[in-house]
Amino acid sequence: MTTYKAPVADTLFILNDVLGYERYSNLPGFADASPDLLDAILGEAAKLAENVIHPLNQVGDHEGCVRHADGSVTTPTGFKDGYDQYREGGWMSLAIPEEFGGQGLPYTVHTAVAEYMSSANMALMMYPGLTQGAIAAILEHGSDEQKQTFVPKMAEGVWTGTMNLTEPHCGTDLGLLRTKAVPTGDGAYKISGQKIFISAGEHDMSENIIHLVLARIEGAPEGVKGISLFIVSKFKLDADGNLGERNAVSCGSLEEKMGIHGNSTCVMNYDEAEGYLIGAENGGLKAMFVMMNEARLGVGLQGLSLGEVAYQNAVAYAKERLQGRSISGAKSPDKKADPIIVHPDIRRNLMNMRAFNEAGRALILWTALKSDVAHRSDVEADKQEADDLLGLMTPIIKGVLTDKGFEHAVMAQQVFGGHGYIEEHGMSQFVRDARIAMIYEGANGIQALDLVGRKLALNGGRAVQTFFKEVGEFCEANRADENMAPFTKGLKKGLNDLQAATMWLMQNAMQKPDNAGAASTDYLHLFGLVALGYMWGRMVKTAQEKIADGSGSSIHEAKLVTGRYFMERIMPETAAHLARISAGADSMMALPEDAF
Amino acid sequence: MTTYKAPVADTLFILNDVLGYERYSNLPGFADASPDLLDAILGEAAKLAENVIHPLNQVGDHEGCVRHADGSVTTPTGFKDGYDQYREGGWMSLAIPEEFGGQGLPYTVHTAVAEYMSSANMALMMYPGLTQGAIAAILEHGSDEQKQTFVPKMAEGVWTGTMNLTEPHCGTDLGLLRTKAVPTGDGAYKISGQKIFISAGEHDMSENIIHLVLARIEGAPEGVKGISLFIVSKFKLDADGNLGERNAVSCGSLEEKMGIHGNSTCVMNYDEAEGYLIGAENGGLKAMFVMMNEARLGVGLQGLSLGEVAYQNAVAYAKERLQGRSISGAKSPDKKADPIIVHPDIRRNLMNMRAFNEAGRALILWTALKSDVAHRSDVEADKQEADDLLGLMTPIIKGVLTDKGFEHAVMAQQVFGGHGYIEEHGMSQFVRDARIAMIYEGANGIQALDLVGRKLALNGGRAVQTFFKEVGEFCEANRADENMAPFTKGLKKGLNDLQAATMWLMQNAMQKPDNAGAASTDYLHLFGLVALGYMWGRMVKTAQEKIADGSGSSIHEAKLVTGRYFMERIMPETAAHLARISAGADSMMALPEDAF
Repeated sequence: MTTYKAPVADTLFILNDVLGYERYSNLPGFADASPDLLDAILGEAAKLAENVIHPLNQVGDHEGCVRHADGSVTTPTGFKDGYDQYREGGWMSLAIPEEFGGQGLPYTVHTAVAEYMSSANMALMMYPGLTQGAIAAILEHGSDEQKQTFVPKMAEGVWTGTMNLTEPHCGTDLGLLRTKAVPTGDGAYKISGQKIFISAGEHDMSENIIHLVLARIEGAPEGVKGISLFIVSKFKLDADGNLGERNAVSCGSLEEKMGIHGNSTCVMNYDEAEGYLIGAENGGLKAMFVMMNEARLGVGLQGLSLGEVAYQNAVAYAKERLQGRSISGAKSPDKKADPIIVHPDIRRNLMNMRAFNEAGRALILWTALKSDVAHRSDVEADKQEADDLLGLMTPIIKGVLTDKGFEHAVMAQQVFGGHGYIEEHGMSQFVRDARIAMIYEGANGIQALDLVGRKLALNGGRAVQTFFKEVGEFCEANRADENMAPFTKGLKKGLNDLQAATMWLMQNAMQKPDNAGAASTDYLHLFGLVALGYMWGRMVKTAQEKIADGSGSSIHEAKLVTGRYFMERIMPETAAHLARISAGADSMMALPEDAF
Repeated sequence: MTTYKAPVADTLFILNDVLGYERYSNLPGFADASPDLLDAILGEAAKLAENVIHPLNQVGDHEGCVRHADGSVTTPTGFKDGYDQYREGGWMSLAIPEEFGGQGLPYTVHTAVAEYMSSANMALMMYPGLTQGAIAAILEHGSDEQKQTFVPKMAEGVWTGTMNLTEPHCGTDLGLLRTKAVPTGDGAYKISGQKIFISAGEHDMSENIIHLVLARIEGAPEGVKGISLFIVSKFKLDADGNLGERNAVSCGSLEEKMGIHGNSTCVMNYDEAEGYLIGAENGGLKAMFVMMNEARLGVGLQGLSLGEVAYQNAVAYAKERLQGRSISGAKSPDKKADPIIVHPDIRRNLMNMRAFNEAGRALILWTALKSDVAHRSDVEADKQEADDLLGLMTPIIKGVLTDKGFEHAVMAQQVFGGHGYIEEHGMSQFVRDARIAMIYEGANGIQALDLVGRKLALNGGRAVQTFFKEVGEFCEANRADENMAPFTKGLKKGLNDLQAATMWLMQNAMQKPDNAGAASTDYLHLFGLVALGYMWGRMVKTAQEKIADGSGSSIHEAKLVTGRYFMERIMPETAAHLARISAGADSMMALPEDAF
């Protein structure tokens, strides 16, 4: 019943016109994805997402996964076929280096494609999504042999990957984890323990599953300093890397969840499973964060993806559902009532989603470009700056885009009235699926702490200052342009609020750390608003140039309206965030625990 | 797995100390519920809610209702027994007039009790809840015979009631409805048509079901002017009111919904069912609004109820879950980690919910008292003022308390991290159940339009002016009190924003009605913040008086902290609402429909 159309034209506008994708052609891989080819790649991705992957979305929610008595898990009808088409089309390996069987294309292109796929079917796309994170960790921390053994198969998608972090008593606080690793003396370890919430832990879509597992080597220090990362292959491998006997890792049960029913979320039991250290002994947390950072951007993208597909369905319903008359006079007098899109409050919902989604897409692609520069440039200064901004933006994209993606799925559901509450229409699924993105890969409160407690002060605040300078200069450069003034004014006001909040934190969080914690979520969202507002500034500027030079179209005209909506109706929230931040921790922390 | 404890002490503080319940003892029914008796009634209600009704909540979600081939519907295990205990305890009939078998107690007392029951089990309490609305409509618009025939049985709870408004093509816009009523010549009508989303339309808990059905009498005018209200009894009644043969009304199917699985939401088919006009011919909309207004307050209450029970469970989890160390130094050094309630961002979630719930409870009880005065006072001026404020506050309570109730259920779920997403913990159910309250009995966008388009200008703005005056005088009276200044300052700022928004609407909505529609939701929430802030002012004032005269306790100390939190962290949102309202409709409405 739901529909999805990949926003290819918008992606191309952002990449080609706003972000100047062609300027990066000197970076490895970019020449292989020229603007013409980019167009073709996104077109093909759109077809797959719309025609193959999306039609499986409601099926997946309805059927869910099934665990059998022998511990095997069956995915919903059609999932394996959909995954095979994705895999065989080479979509898994877009950005994987060519030496490991990938296509070496920009991460930016992978990101653009991943948005479409997650919009089409979030639960299905988690199987390859987790694999990407596992590949990243192996490429960064694995030995040459590990890379050669695992990555090509994973890039091809015949093997998939997982991340095994959480245990029943330990989620955020990984220092508490108990899973044990005992050296066998021949370079291997016996891994024992229980992991929970393991996405894609067991399923029927790939020949083998590569588990990356955090565990504590016998005698290791307590806390996070004693954690190591291991590779545990579902099937043991012989010397040539061929599949051998079953390893002692199994799915004990499937979690009954609020959403993403099509994804198998497993309790995984390790019973002296054969595992191999990846990276340094006791260096597991560092290796894990490679996966985690990759995954956090992917989860932020899921937030946008769900907000986008929910928006599209709300638009379709608002154009089709006839109810009431426009307050300014009948718009469809030949019909019994007007379509509800004529009503301002319905428009408010649609415009909120749209204004956010288009800027969110720009911010994700802007950040993905930073990732490409950070990993592929040979100019040290460029690499450092890009890496700074990538690290800074990661918690913001994860936290803000998933909070808003959920909020917008709820908003889209609201447009459907009572019909939105009925499962058949699919709007409830978007809400239920979007909900998890605020939680996993570090709940959004943790993202906020990462921003305030780590990223803000890192290298003397270098990343933040770089960002403030870029946005400030953009405002200054366009201040005198009367077409741009309405946009730079709102953006500058937001930037001022953000800088004031940053100053407040510097002055008040050192002597009283609770002030940082108390400010963190508001600071995250304040930062997000300014980053999104900056994207609107850039998009509007480009649209105006297009219109001025005669190459503009209705897309560009629409950008001016939507950008104005953002500045008028979304940007003013920065002041409330600043007020809350400046209130400090006192009233938040004053109640004694037993008063609750 | 979930727990619930009725907040009796807080209800008593609000009723007795803040709102001066005893001052109303001259109103009918109030003398029968003296403060002592009130205490006893709430205590008994708490026991029933906590020990009988709440334990059925997760069962209801898990099992749902089942429709059998013959059209009958079975409710979840234990629901009938729970309902019977509720019914036999006389909880149905608390505020029903004594002449119709009720107890004639204040509606305020009924409201206090209803909060507990809905917190305990929203889906179960919808069966009696809908019955209350049907009773109200019959008492207001029914003939003496209809009142005598139906109300005593419904007050006793052996018969239940429903509201049948929505049809597949017509929800908000009732003018489109098609259900037909053909006079039979003997005073009855044959009702034919299909109704959807009918809560408690068919079930096994009562001997008979009294459907109040909107339909169009043959030859009636088009639109809402041609709608009449009918009583259709599931079993026809003989001359003595005894149950006779089955009427031609049946449940065609149950909707598969996101939540409230324990409530049977039916498609109801009327196939020349015998019905009787209630109220005037073509006067159905007016009669329906009696039910609707009652129901809207009830739904607002559901928002609070769900926010409260979700909050309580989040508090319990936050005290028990050990994860990480306090940023200001270990609080439980003897344990492996501190309980997560030590973390400011967790506190932020808890304090947001708490600050809102306590004020929401006060606002609902304040409004319920207005309802009692409006219906029971014999002083005309008091009645009018109370009725004005009741009408004004109804859309605010419905819209704001359900938006926030849902938001807080989501917030409470977030405190649980990954465990919140697992159905077993029950937090997902609170979110899924709370979601419907934003939609039914008029989606919240409709509440906002009711406020801006109808209530605001009614009688020359009399209600709004009364409210502004009351809040303004409260600020003025307490401005000089230095203990109160931090509270009156925030409240006054909010009131100023609300008055500025009201002025803007008066100046800009007449010549351009889209400006009213574009402002409506923000205006609703802005109004809600001021109303809740006013409740905080009143509560803090009372708490300070208690503390000053030596009768204060930890409850009163906590009010000062929570009230300050509200003023520092929630009240500042009024400025963003005002900014959005003042932006007008232009950027919201400018995009052509085909640009979406």
